[in-house]
Amino acid sequence: MKRIVVLGSGRSSWYLLKYLCEKAREKGWFVLVCDRDEKALLTHTQGLFLERQVCDISDVAVLTQLIQGSSVVVSLLPPVMHFSVAKICLECGVHLATASYVSEDMAGLHNEASEKGLIFLNEMGLDPGIDHMSAMKVMDQIREKGGEIVTFESYCGGLILEEDCKGNPWGYKFSWNPRNVVLAGQGGMSIFRENGNTRCIPWHRLFAEAGQLEIPGLGRFDAYANRDSLGYTNVYGLQNAATILRGTLRRNGFCRAWQVLVKLGYTDAITVLPEPIGSIGALSQALTGRPDEETTANWLKKNGVVDEEMREKFEFLDMDDMQQRNLGRTSADVLQEHLMQKWLLNPNDRDEVIMYHRIGFTEGNRLKTHHSVLRVIGKDALHTAMAKTVGLPLAIGVEMILSGDCPETGVVIPVKAYWYGHVLKELEGQGIVFEESIN
Amino acid sequence: MKRIVVLGSGRSSWYLLKYLCEKAREKGWFVLVCDRDEKALLTHTQGLFLERQVCDISDVAVLTQLIQGSSVVVSLLPPVMHFSVAKICLECGVHLATASYVSEDMAGLHNEASEKGLIFLNEMGLDPGIDHMSAMKVMDQIREKGGEIVTFESYCGGLILEEDCKGNPWGYKFSWNPRNVVLAGQGGMSIFRENGNTRCIPWHRLFAEAGQLEIPGLGRFDAYANRDSLGYTNVYGLQNAATILRGTLRRNGFCRAWQVLVKLGYTDAITVLPEPIGSIGALSQALTGRPDEETTANWLKKNGVVDEEMREKFEFLDMDDMQQRNLGRTSADVLQEHLMQKWLLNPNDRDEVIMYHRIGFTEGNRLKTHHSVLRVIGKDALHTAMAKTVGLPLAIGVEMILSGDCPETGVVIPVKAYWYGHVLKELEGQGIVFEESIN
Repeated sequence: MKRIVVLGSGRSSWYLLKYLCEKAREKGWFVLVCDRDEKALLTHTQGLFLERQVCDISDVAVLTQLIQGSSVVVSLLPPVMHFSVAKICLECGVHLATASYVSEDMAGLHNEASEKGLIFLNEMGLDPGIDHMSAMKVMDQIREKGGEIVTFESYCGGLILEEDCKGNPWGYKFSWNPRNVVLAGQGGMSIFRENGNTRCIPWHRLFAEAGQLEIPGLGRFDAYANRDSLGYTNVYGLQNAATILRGTLRRNGFCRAWQVLVKLGYTDAITVLPEPIGSIGALSQALTGRPDEETTANWLKKNGVVDEEMREKFEFLDMDDMQQRNLGRTSADVLQEHLMQKWLLNPNDRDEVIMYHRIGFTEGNRLKTHHSVLRVIGKDALHTAMAKTVGLPLAIGVEMILSGDCPETGVVIPVKAYWYGHVLKELEGQGIVFEESIN
Repeated sequence: MKRIVVLGSGRSSWYLLKYLCEKAREKGWFVLVCDRDEKALLTHTQGLFLERQVCDISDVAVLTQLIQGSSVVVSLLPPVMHFSVAKICLECGVHLATASYVSEDMAGLHNEASEKGLIFLNEMGLDPGIDHMSAMKVMDQIREKGGEIVTFESYCGGLILEEDCKGNPWGYKFSWNPRNVVLAGQGGMSIFRENGNTRCIPWHRLFAEAGQLEIPGLGRFDAYANRDSLGYTNVYGLQNAATILRGTLRRNGFCRAWQVLVKLGYTDAITVLPEPIGSIGALSQALTGRPDEETTANWLKKNGVVDEEMREKFEFLDMDDMQQRNLGRTSADVLQEHLMQKWLLNPNDRDEVIMYHRIGFTEGNRLKTHHSVLRVIGKDALHTAMAKTVGLPLAIGVEMILSGDCPETGVVIPVKAYWYGHVLKELEGQGIVFEESIN
């Protein structure tokens, strides 16, 4: 019997598990999901028929026992843990699937995995994942007709329906891992190509450099450059493209306000704060030097750091709250825990996922632009659009691995027709459909 | 016979070695200096009578052989290497002396070293080093008379004599490790106390927050906060002080111009630059997005990033130079190698070291301010004020360790009268004298 082990049961797991359970019933597979947090495990597997196990996955012995004898492992663990999982998979001869970026470590396992006939499928979620597949489908079609890609832009955002964000001037709540939002861009520069020139933006001014983007039918959004877009130049076949940009979407005005937090030091994840600073209020005073008698929001306005629109955002965040936060000991820890209260997804809030590709190409002597727009709306805080769009591609990918007719082995990302052909069709059946247009 | 092994022969070694050689002749000690770079070894030991050895100190076996049977090791190696040296010293029962900050790793060796009766003397250079000793001497005197310290500020800068910096609008050349200048402040926030409030400044705006400082008799300087000043609160006995600030000095106008380099991303040491970017010119284009036909300096001026004074500084740096730099693969690498050409100390250039303590204290019911000012001027590019003020305290510290009557063992920094009493007196004999005043 084929055995699927899912490691971790976070926010992205419900749709993944539901899909796998349905397939398992159909095909006689066995599905086991593990987490060390029993509450998370029960919450994110509500109403699903599968095996649950509470265990400490950070223990290599436990992990090895889980993986041994399985057919495929799905890792929903923090990305930093994928490599240890992959090494055990290699040892035990088990396939692996993740929705995360391929790390250098992971890439280094390609030959070994390939020699053993194993598939280590990565970047099989939303972004990265659906973006690769939907963009490659469009670009393959253009190239089949003899066209050349001259500009490539691809944007994605995990947002909240505007009507479910009323009274929150940031227009934002957490529909996925808050840590990733707080640390966005950190650990180096974002790299992309724009009108033939390579651009590098350090993380501490990434949000200052955010642009405005019009998405057909959906209006204007903020967009900032996401990691190293040029890493996909060869994978996407864009050696001759003048623009190559992968970006992240936020509501209008989010980025310039977030930039203030970055600039002031609220997102620093390195320095252990000196003893008395454990609340967002104490942190605000340390970072701004504001006098005791003034609110941080007003002080920032008075000193020209923010305008009135941004002042309201800071007022909403209650930056002078003196409640002690216990998440950790850096600015980023204090900010994250504070934001987790302020940007909490209520049980009935609906998130939305938006993806947009804008691809300039040649058709004979003419330059044309292809637009692909995806909008997926969540049902509630458990059944989010984020969980659906991250989880379903991964589940379908697992099904394809188990089908046994994959043309690739080793460390793989889904850019070939074998993957996108089937996955995009399956996603359409689940209501995940791009609207496409050319002008 | 007592045997002193000096590891590394960098810019700070000449005065150290000269002092040790003189003492060695007097007392029958043996001095060995090692470096893997033969040229650096010969240059920095010109005219000195001692044993030289070219060897690869990064090899643990080589290092162990060097250390075994010695009385004391002086590590002038990059700080990151001190810990491995210290562990071998611990094994071999050998004392250790460095001019570097005590790392967490190093601090962790305190008990073990102490049990073995070993002295691991650190922070025994200029800053840290002379600053600790000269400040503690003043503060001990104040406290002996019943005074209390209410504000503590201590500044230090390694600068170049203004007349030897003509035509260089930055007023700066490298008299010490260029890497430290390029990476200044990185790896977290600078922390200090100001008028009773704890302040934290992230490195990416450290230079924007630099202040102006008047030093009695020497004029105005830029000053930025240096690392974690509050780490010295207990060591200095400043629990009740409203201001605790250790700062670094630069010429007027340096900091706001340097801030532009930091802000734009020139000092990023994490991201490997994409392939075509290996010159300061290509880097400038990637970081600013300036058009081909415009110089970076002019483009920055036109876009309001710099004013005319700063534009001249960037013009001087020739930010559009397309010469390929080979030091490494990050922005910081390219910038450093470029600056090493532009800010090169010519053979006859004279550097100067300036240190200034401003200490507010109580005398009865009155508040008074103590000023200590040190100015040391170098002779030329080999006999720098920097080498003298870093090397001599360390050499004197080594002599004190070998004298065998140190009251402390374990991981030690020179804040007690035992150290400063002797060292400051010896330094006075070498022309390193503070001018002190009270008002």
